[in-house]
Amino acid sequence: MRAVDLIRRKRDSAELSREEIAWLIDGYTRGEIPDYQMSAWLMAVACRGLTRAEIAALTEAMLHSGCVLDFPGANRGKLVDKHSTGGVGDKTSLVIAPIAAAGGLRVPMISGRGLGHSGGTLDKLESIPGFNVNLSLDQFRRVLEACGCALIGQTAEIAPADKKMYALRDVTGTVESPGLICASIMSKKLAEGIDALVLDVKTGSGAFMKTSEDAANLAELLVETGTRMGKRVVALITDMDQPLGGAAGNALEVIEALEVLGGGGPPDTRELCLELAGWMFYLGKRAVTVAAGKQLAAEQIASGRARDKFREIIRLQDGDPEVVDDPGRLPRSSGTLDVASPADGYVAAMECEQLGRACVALGGGREKKDDAIDPAVGLRFHRKTGDAVRRGDALCTLHYNSQARLAEARHLVETAYRFSAGPPPRRALVQRVIGDVPG
Amino acid sequence: MRAVDLIRRKRDSAELSREEIAWLIDGYTRGEIPDYQMSAWLMAVACRGLTRAEIAALTEAMLHSGCVLDFPGANRGKLVDKHSTGGVGDKTSLVIAPIAAAGGLRVPMISGRGLGHSGGTLDKLESIPGFNVNLSLDQFRRVLEACGCALIGQTAEIAPADKKMYALRDVTGTVESPGLICASIMSKKLAEGIDALVLDVKTGSGAFMKTSEDAANLAELLVETGTRMGKRVVALITDMDQPLGGAAGNALEVIEALEVLGGGGPPDTRELCLELAGWMFYLGKRAVTVAAGKQLAAEQIASGRARDKFREIIRLQDGDPEVVDDPGRLPRSSGTLDVASPADGYVAAMECEQLGRACVALGGGREKKDDAIDPAVGLRFHRKTGDAVRRGDALCTLHYNSQARLAEARHLVETAYRFSAGPPPRRALVQRVIGDVPG
Repeated sequence: MRAVDLIRRKRDSAELSREEIAWLIDGYTRGEIPDYQMSAWLMAVACRGLTRAEIAALTEAMLHSGCVLDFPGANRGKLVDKHSTGGVGDKTSLVIAPIAAAGGLRVPMISGRGLGHSGGTLDKLESIPGFNVNLSLDQFRRVLEACGCALIGQTAEIAPADKKMYALRDVTGTVESPGLICASIMSKKLAEGIDALVLDVKTGSGAFMKTSEDAANLAELLVETGTRMGKRVVALITDMDQPLGGAAGNALEVIEALEVLGGGGPPDTRELCLELAGWMFYLGKRAVTVAAGKQLAAEQIASGRARDKFREIIRLQDGDPEVVDDPGRLPRSSGTLDVASPADGYVAAMECEQLGRACVALGGGREKKDDAIDPAVGLRFHRKTGDAVRRGDALCTLHYNSQARLAEARHLVETAYRFSAGPPPRRALVQRVIGDVPG
Repeated sequence: MRAVDLIRRKRDSAELSREEIAWLIDGYTRGEIPDYQMSAWLMAVACRGLTRAEIAALTEAMLHSGCVLDFPGANRGKLVDKHSTGGVGDKTSLVIAPIAAAGGLRVPMISGRGLGHSGGTLDKLESIPGFNVNLSLDQFRRVLEACGCALIGQTAEIAPADKKMYALRDVTGTVESPGLICASIMSKKLAEGIDALVLDVKTGSGAFMKTSEDAANLAELLVETGTRMGKRVVALITDMDQPLGGAAGNALEVIEALEVLGGGGPPDTRELCLELAGWMFYLGKRAVTVAAGKQLAAEQIASGRARDKFREIIRLQDGDPEVVDDPGRLPRSSGTLDVASPADGYVAAMECEQLGRACVALGGGREKKDDAIDPAVGLRFHRKTGDAVRRGDALCTLHYNSQARLAEARHLVETAYRFSAGPPPRRALVQRVIGDVPG
């Protein structure tokens, strides 16, 4: 086999075989196929697409480029994870993982960092003093065994092909390919050794998939690929046309997650967490219907068991467990500034990606992979899409640590809000469910 | 400017500006843009295409990546070259260059080597004992000044961007792109500092462009690109559905070129040489019509001036000038083998690329860039498409130096001929002329 022939065939829209794709990915991971051939192949894929069979083969090849976790038989069927395609203010993992573990599931969650306008679970967790997301695979197993949940970053052993390919895609204009996105997500998630997976595919102005068609297309690819690999998989298409909940920024989102775990919090964050956790319980066979799963999730909150579980996770991962009862122990910004409404009427829309960029401008996110993060900064939203406003009302509070960073963020926030005289049409929080839908 | 943004825009079928393309090519030539980004861009180009303006900008950027020759004013308007897209048995450069120089033009011809089934002018010239194609640019100028013609290979100073990009295209499946082919050809030819160019775009089973549509498309790109750069350019679409003339193989083709220069030779080789040289004289304003140009070309042969000129070129480039009068001084193979017709009737077709590969199998061409060439081996054709044959007639003689190499070549030749009961339809040698056609 020659790499150039596989590149040419993909350029000419041919379908590659499972063996050919495995050969290509294996050769690239070992360093036998150079970057310049892989980038040409990736671009041919970005232009010509991949068939469902090719996506499955690519996922499998990337998955097997590293370790695939395997857990003792006692956990069989209970290993369930959730993955979100990312957005602004999405702190659901921090709520769902403790709920699911408290309800009897095992959640081996390998998460990512924020990049561009989108936040990342690892950055949020690291705003908890001492919290260690860099566990070895052995430590990861031990924490999971001890409390039913562990939250870490991608290690060198997990899907190394994905790590190498993602870095190359980032600089060669080949990120935006549904097949490549699908294989990247699923290879990492399937390496966790899970039985079932709930996908939260975001759509709207703050999501990577701006249209619901693109989101549904990706969701179908993800569900089909997982199902081909013998997993129970469902995808919820959910709204990211405005930030989720009342805050964006790392410590601010931990506070909101604690509010939800305490039985409060913004209604949309709470609703989405119960929905996703309900599906996890259903797919993990802790509930016979999704509705029963949601009920079970609500019980974990009401009983305080989910909150206790979160405290336990923090303790086992070297964090300060007292933040759960005293969020004042989390980093706090030195200054705050309110942005006021310039108009009477309704909030017609929020440019959600722009709000994410405002958070980055404050120092709460990354433009480039190696940028440092300020955990304390971010945005608190007082008015959201559909809310009535009067001129002068506070729309949003900026939490900042640097005057120098404030001006750009303020401008982004001020121009992110749109107003109208009457209320805008409502967007459903969960727009569609794709996959293993019960009868 | 960031390379990744230009790659993404080409992936999304956008048109890049002249400045953007210049920046990309310049950065790549200097080594500031890595191979893996250039190969992604090249694949995006192979998939999405280039506009005419982009091809012109790319040609210009590649041309100016190195030296552009400039000749004294006395030569103004007389500098004319010919370029062929390549095929089997195409020895026209060896005939035309001396004819054009004998008729008062200046021919600064930078040629290539054979690769795959296709032969190369440099390899043919090197079958003349001592002939040096590796002149410095200064030596090249001096030979050109002394005799009106010089024949060399691409130097490091000429279009280095093309050299680097071609090597990358070869291993990344991005050779077959009309825009990239056009820019590669034209950047090298325009670096010769010529005023006018005659292009011989081959079509048929032995050409890179198998269909006349593909050939016409490339011809139009080449002509438009040259014209945009202020040159007089014409493209002849000519037949390469069978080998040109009576021989393929380096020394065998030099012998045939000498026959044509001596007033003989196969009618098709002779006709094509007069046609191409006639256009050169017309574009170089030595003749007011193409017909007058052909007449002028025929006179250079009849008078012996073209043959004298070839002798002079060989002498100035350190070759043995006596081969012109005594072709027996050229390398000769140790063995010959006739392939006989298995049938009565007519030669219906010759698989021309396969005959080129037979020549490579004998050692007369290259599979890979660094393969050594045996100048003596090759094929002499006794029957060609349209000829009547009787069973047992010799179709072709294989000139070989190695029994080990003979079997494959023989098999390729035997299976390259197709037969029919009646004569096949004739294909015109010159199918179309594209470009600067006189009224």
